[in-house]
Amino acid sequence: MKFILIPDSFKGTMSSQTIIEIMRSVIVQYYADADVLGVPIADGGEGTVDAMLASRPGQKITLRTKGPTGEEVDSFYGLFEDGTAVIEIAAAAGLPQMHGQLDVLHATSYGGGELIYDAVVRKGARSVIIGLGGSATHDVGCGLAAALGVDFRDRQGRSFVPVGATLAEVDRIDLSRLDPRIGQTRFQAMCDIDNPLCGEHGAAAVFSPQKGATPEIVARLDAGSAHLAAVMERDLGRNVLDLPGSGAAGGMGAGLVGFFDAELRMGIQVLLDTIDFENMLRDTDYVFTGEGKIDRQSLRGKVVIGVAQRCRRQNVPVVAVVGDIGDRIDEAYGLGVSAIFSINQVAIPFREARQRAPEDLRKTIDNILRLLATAETEKGTEHS
Amino acid sequence: MKFILIPDSFKGTMSSQTIIEIMRSVIVQYYADADVLGVPIADGGEGTVDAMLASRPGQKITLRTKGPTGEEVDSFYGLFEDGTAVIEIAAAAGLPQMHGQLDVLHATSYGGGELIYDAVVRKGARSVIIGLGGSATHDVGCGLAAALGVDFRDRQGRSFVPVGATLAEVDRIDLSRLDPRIGQTRFQAMCDIDNPLCGEHGAAAVFSPQKGATPEIVARLDAGSAHLAAVMERDLGRNVLDLPGSGAAGGMGAGLVGFFDAELRMGIQVLLDTIDFENMLRDTDYVFTGEGKIDRQSLRGKVVIGVAQRCRRQNVPVVAVVGDIGDRIDEAYGLGVSAIFSINQVAIPFREARQRAPEDLRKTIDNILRLLATAETEKGTEHS
Repeated sequence: MKFILIPDSFKGTMSSQTIIEIMRSVIVQYYADADVLGVPIADGGEGTVDAMLASRPGQKITLRTKGPTGEEVDSFYGLFEDGTAVIEIAAAAGLPQMHGQLDVLHATSYGGGELIYDAVVRKGARSVIIGLGGSATHDVGCGLAAALGVDFRDRQGRSFVPVGATLAEVDRIDLSRLDPRIGQTRFQAMCDIDNPLCGEHGAAAVFSPQKGATPEIVARLDAGSAHLAAVMERDLGRNVLDLPGSGAAGGMGAGLVGFFDAELRMGIQVLLDTIDFENMLRDTDYVFTGEGKIDRQSLRGKVVIGVAQRCRRQNVPVVAVVGDIGDRIDEAYGLGVSAIFSINQVAIPFREARQRAPEDLRKTIDNILRLLATAETEKGTEHS
Repeated sequence: MKFILIPDSFKGTMSSQTIIEIMRSVIVQYYADADVLGVPIADGGEGTVDAMLASRPGQKITLRTKGPTGEEVDSFYGLFEDGTAVIEIAAAAGLPQMHGQLDVLHATSYGGGELIYDAVVRKGARSVIIGLGGSATHDVGCGLAAALGVDFRDRQGRSFVPVGATLAEVDRIDLSRLDPRIGQTRFQAMCDIDNPLCGEHGAAAVFSPQKGATPEIVARLDAGSAHLAAVMERDLGRNVLDLPGSGAAGGMGAGLVGFFDAELRMGIQVLLDTIDFENMLRDTDYVFTGEGKIDRQSLRGKVVIGVAQRCRRQNVPVVAVVGDIGDRIDEAYGLGVSAIFSINQVAIPFREARQRAPEDLRKTIDNILRLLATAETEKGTEHS
């Protein structure tokens, strides 16, 4: 028997890795010789590089880069043999690297560009994946771009590295000094949100408050971002203002598309491609996936459905084990989910249920395996 | 495919029959040609006769009997071809028949004896099952017994029919005028409680308050019951005082044992015997059972385990679908339960969960069937 365990985390309850370990511990009780592959889910935030390296062999490269405050920090990225590099922006411009002194007006994503430069120019990577979660910045990716050779000029023609506070000063953008290897690199951003760069649902309004922005700063960042988008459209010929996901990571979604023609993709799709999930699926009997809550929102390409759609193409059964099951999710079955089970064992509110979630998960998996074993025996009986 | 659906009610949420209908509606979606047998659970209370008649062909006999107040009432019992009669005491001495004027001191179970007399003496029944739930009486079955010829005498030697208020007046019990056919009849009482006749956990203390007893009346009923038990021991040679279940139905458990040598059995065991469950199990692929909560208490011979133990002997898989799953119930698997699933789909308190229980049950059954169908396909793939 071969199983693949690829659950999303249950937010606030269990990490993807914890869920995998619980699932695995039960499966081996029933199928001692089974091949059980665990794929921790990387969501683009902190831990993305480690998660990917857990599912596919590769190197973890460490180096010093500029941190979000301008001070040097220890950073890292992942590099696979096929020339794909994985960066998590949280490792070079992350909230914890602000040491409690949030400053979204001045924090820079420059270090992220240094990571990419090292991967592409020094190590020869030809494809770069950027996890966009957990950034402390709102520089529309200008810092990252500057580190790769994108040239930003103010009205006086002076070259500078824009930060949130100075987005409105960008007067011209020049890509001509970009290293040609950067121009030939495929960029993919892991981006599970739809927020546009500006406006009511934009990066400044929705995400900058958690990076320390006051209402006045939100307005300033929003205006600066809109200005930059206008310059990008004029100088680069790309309108990124209303692109879904352009608001990710302080506008870095917009920057990556505008400067590097990046694809903004659902994290699960990038992950599945990166680990060559199709190949992993060969000879697999059951895939177990899951998430904290399956609902109509999560049917839009999140982990469970992302996994199920690929399994369906290869006729591999997918069992989803989730926290809560929302209403009207029958579409999931058409998209490849074989069956869905909630881990809830008793009718109690979430604040109590979450404390027993690991044991409830264990019991649920146990009963699913019991049922599968029963069905096997039953079929065996009929065939005899 | 052949399925048997035999769930207990989810107390306060769904009746056994409702659960069967929901289960059936899902099963036929996947197995249109399946043989789906529903066995509503009779718990010995109101509905027991109808439930048994739903699972095994028989006649419903209606007749006028004395009700608990002494007024005549329309009553009934069930009669099967093999000579087994099923009585529910609630149909002849039930709480609703008091019309809101509870009077546990004077209510009589006499009508129950009339039902049995009709079944045994007039219709030739040789086995009588008595469901003990829902009685309004506390006459230790003396009314029922008197209707069948048991003679109760007071100190003056006068024959009378004891009620709760006059239990202490019984001076002598004489079985010599009992119809011989009654003496040859097998009596089984459906009795799922362990309460003894008297004392702290006895019939008066635990059950008579819901039949209208004040603390003074409780004490009087308890003392009267103890007196009667002493007379029974002296005249009939049977000590029923501490017999588990003797406190059922206002002490009728004690009376049935003392007067008629009845067996006090778990309701599910009586039901399974009566409907010849072993025969029904032939060629059955899956049995679905369930209850409101499976816990260590319910492992003691209640519906799920009662069903599972018989299925196990014939190697028929049993899937339990329950409201809540208690802790430390792993013993259930050893007793024959193949797998247990809770219907809880979201982490919410019971007062909310109960309102969505039918839909949650439907979804849970649906996913179990999806998983079974998947396992079948999967096995098919391997065998091909």
